[in-house]
Amino acid sequence: MVETREVTRPNMVWDAWGVPSGHAPLPEKIRTLLAQVFGVSGEPVARRDEDEVPLRASALTAAELAELSALVGADHVSIEHRDRLLRAGGKSTPDLLRRRGEGPQDAPDAVVFPADHEQVLAVLAHCAERGIAVVPFGGGTSVVGGVDPARGEFDAVVALDLRRLDTLTELDAVSLTATLGAGLTGPQAEELLGAQGLSLGHFPQSFEFATIGGFAATRSSGQASAGYGRFDDMIQKLRIATPSGTVEVGRAPASAAGPDLRELFSGSEGTLGVITEVTLRVHPKPETVAYQAWSFPDFATGAAALRTVVQTGAAPTVLRLSDEAETGLNLARAGDIGGSAVTGCLAVTTFEGAAAHVEARNAEASALLVAAGGVALGEQPARDWEHGRFSAPYLRDALLDVGILCETLETATSWSNLAALKAKVTAALVDSLTAQGTPALVMCHISHTYPTGASLYFTVVAKQAEDPLAQWLRAKQAAGDAIIATGGTITHHHAVGEDHRPWLGAEIGEVGVAVLRAVKQAVDPAGILNPGKLIP
Amino acid sequence: MVETREVTRPNMVWDAWGVPSGHAPLPEKIRTLLAQVFGVSGEPVARRDEDEVPLRASALTAAELAELSALVGADHVSIEHRDRLLRAGGKSTPDLLRRRGEGPQDAPDAVVFPADHEQVLAVLAHCAERGIAVVPFGGGTSVVGGVDPARGEFDAVVALDLRRLDTLTELDAVSLTATLGAGLTGPQAEELLGAQGLSLGHFPQSFEFATIGGFAATRSSGQASAGYGRFDDMIQKLRIATPSGTVEVGRAPASAAGPDLRELFSGSEGTLGVITEVTLRVHPKPETVAYQAWSFPDFATGAAALRTVVQTGAAPTVLRLSDEAETGLNLARAGDIGGSAVTGCLAVTTFEGAAAHVEARNAEASALLVAAGGVALGEQPARDWEHGRFSAPYLRDALLDVGILCETLETATSWSNLAALKAKVTAALVDSLTAQGTPALVMCHISHTYPTGASLYFTVVAKQAEDPLAQWLRAKQAAGDAIIATGGTITHHHAVGEDHRPWLGAEIGEVGVAVLRAVKQAVDPAGILNPGKLIP
Repeated sequence: MVETREVTRPNMVWDAWGVPSGHAPLPEKIRTLLAQVFGVSGEPVARRDEDEVPLRASALTAAELAELSALVGADHVSIEHRDRLLRAGGKSTPDLLRRRGEGPQDAPDAVVFPADHEQVLAVLAHCAERGIAVVPFGGGTSVVGGVDPARGEFDAVVALDLRRLDTLTELDAVSLTATLGAGLTGPQAEELLGAQGLSLGHFPQSFEFATIGGFAATRSSGQASAGYGRFDDMIQKLRIATPSGTVEVGRAPASAAGPDLRELFSGSEGTLGVITEVTLRVHPKPETVAYQAWSFPDFATGAAALRTVVQTGAAPTVLRLSDEAETGLNLARAGDIGGSAVTGCLAVTTFEGAAAHVEARNAEASALLVAAGGVALGEQPARDWEHGRFSAPYLRDALLDVGILCETLETATSWSNLAALKAKVTAALVDSLTAQGTPALVMCHISHTYPTGASLYFTVVAKQAEDPLAQWLRAKQAAGDAIIATGGTITHHHAVGEDHRPWLGAEIGEVGVAVLRAVKQAVDPAGILNPGKLIP
Repeated sequence: MVETREVTRPNMVWDAWGVPSGHAPLPEKIRTLLAQVFGVSGEPVARRDEDEVPLRASALTAAELAELSALVGADHVSIEHRDRLLRAGGKSTPDLLRRRGEGPQDAPDAVVFPADHEQVLAVLAHCAERGIAVVPFGGGTSVVGGVDPARGEFDAVVALDLRRLDTLTELDAVSLTATLGAGLTGPQAEELLGAQGLSLGHFPQSFEFATIGGFAATRSSGQASAGYGRFDDMIQKLRIATPSGTVEVGRAPASAAGPDLRELFSGSEGTLGVITEVTLRVHPKPETVAYQAWSFPDFATGAAALRTVVQTGAAPTVLRLSDEAETGLNLARAGDIGGSAVTGCLAVTTFEGAAAHVEARNAEASALLVAAGGVALGEQPARDWEHGRFSAPYLRDALLDVGILCETLETATSWSNLAALKAKVTAALVDSLTAQGTPALVMCHISHTYPTGASLYFTVVAKQAEDPLAQWLRAKQAAGDAIIATGGTITHHHAVGEDHRPWLGAEIGEVGVAVLRAVKQAVDPAGILNPGKLIP
């Protein structure tokens, strides 16, 4: 009964990242590396066909489905196998390991496709009255269990797929703002803006599939965050449907009219309402892009160099640094993993804008990086990084298929605490996995910088144990505990979802949790919105 | 019973802005101007001596005062006439007109001076149990009724003066952050930081008297906001005492761990807790400051020029533009009001930082301003502006004393809506005052710019009517209604307090108000914190 919209936006495959065309067998040099380091053969296991995956039967009756159909149209409520399966959850490694496991998959009892804000409001009011849980669903790229079809205290759950909210509603070419439907994916948004000579500048690794609403709901941060800011920085206005009615927040670029409620609904992860429309700062498409790669002798020297650049306000668009392990494995240059690597630590800068602006900023940053011990490597390694920047999740799938555990996690802290946090999290991961009999490779990079601190993004690779899910959850527990104990945030840009919820109380404290619960009670008194996510 | 701390921070006089040394008779050329335009003689009326002002007797019994003394020490609870009178409210024109009126003044029933966070917690818990309202008090510079001694449903109110929370608790020279006590004034904070070669870069007009806690609680924005950001942008962490316990928010420069609760307590205006400590981004003291003034033929041309500069990221430290009326009266150059003025519209830019950085930014911005129709006026008018930048409130007092009504108000909106908002607010003020028989001069400037919009700051001058308070409140009502009707925010940097509360519902909507009330209920269930402010 559901319209197919594959033309404008592809669905991801049910048990892996991305689209089929992105998947390829592991290159020979990576298989050799895996055989040497982990003693695995590199032969992939077969995966199940989606049609053969047993799903629990929909808990919704025909009458209940008819009621939902009355709100959005019968063509826009689906209980079809594939529609449900594709909204069975996100794309964390635990998600993918569960999909690869035997047995039935959980899935939402129906998928509802509202056409607009008013239909979202109507569905929420209806589900609140009937006691049906609602999981807002954008691109399904969550890596923290943020879109798992949890029912909470209810008997049924629907996935509220926002893909029909896919328009550029308003464009203000003077103020450089655009109002975008929550269901637009990154490429769709860029296409609509690009036709007007504009760009959002938001390019997280999930860019190809994730949506505007999802970016806002999870406080996404893109690879060009040094230049264009985090997604929450871009938000001018939010329109949100809640079971208690509509909220519209953001009347001006900045205001002193009390608490900034944009910052309460940004990062609310579908638990406080459904973001249906986002007004964002946009930019003219850059005239020029300058690329420059750098080598630093070690991570501490490189980090200090990045710090100088961002504290001086030299304003690159991209500013990142791989540690020795990530540089050695060429992980920042996906096409060349296992090939001859840059020595030390690779850093990448790019600069976008008008030619003179780019030239001045690049000159200022380059002088600072040289003074801080950087050696210029020319453009190519930076272009290589950009070329492969969305491909790492495909590599993870190929690794999972050959018996390798691969997952990422991330945090952020102040510059002065960065080395300690990196050491403690690395040790926690290595120790946990070694104790389980599977020594791990842990690599790290800085990809988001601020004047006062930076993010740390870890990639972990080990041989899969007998029960790889349990194996990873132990390592993740150790890493999360180390992050909190060492003063980092439990997540810099992946959000909380189900997976980080155990640590949120430590992050924001008892009164902070009470505040979130009070807000939840005010906007969603029946508690139907995204049960089990975010709020402890 | 209270310690005197006049050495380190002056109290403002009870019925006017600032300290006695800042007050002076009106210069002859201003008196001439006032006689010509408004027909007033320029002879000031006498003001009351503070010792002779009748105050309502304290509603607190000796036993109640003893209980408070047990928490903070007897030396730190005062019911002395002067201590109460100096915390009788803020410094809006309505406040000052009320002080200048006959009859008794309202004042808090006692002033309590806690030593630290734990004492604030103890006082809040005690007052919640006993049903005593608490008004957190910093510098007392509110111009929106934010510190009025309102009792709400209670019989008594204490002012919680935070001046003893006056230390630099922690300095992170690597991350460039400093943790400052909430009671430090602007100059005190700059002195402590300056000794380490650092500066906060926050210079609002209230700088000399307002406090770190007040800046955070009201979302203050300083005159160098183009370069150093709004105060809320500077906040890394907040420590807050609430009747329900302590909240500490901000574990990292940025995070995706749910809603950003820093942005919920920033701007909470003492209604959700008492901010006791703020960790802020700081900067090395600038090596160089470059000044440049500009003339634009009209406000629209000047505004478009500022927009280009900020959208390009040319990054001045100060970026402001006076309209034709403000330029004509030389209001941006306080020492020269009524003297020979720059024609058209005066703009000021400054650039701070390392010499090469300043030079490059100044060159980029200058080229953009010239291309947009600006004529360079050299350094002097920009230096004149900086020299007089804290003196306007003193001038207001001198005008009030000679029968002139003078007040300011401010808003912000997108660049595309700026001209319409300016026109509508100006018309509302002029029409309201003209209808009351007192034609007004309305001047305006842009002092805070963002890539997507800007602030508008209005100064209104008219002859006082028989009842100047009623006269102004009618004009203010008209202006506030025009702001909301034209899409502006009811306040860009003055906060909500009592005076803007009637418009907050229109600003954030019914669900937004319900959210604030729910948070209030969670952290302050007895409702003792700053009754009658912010939350409708």
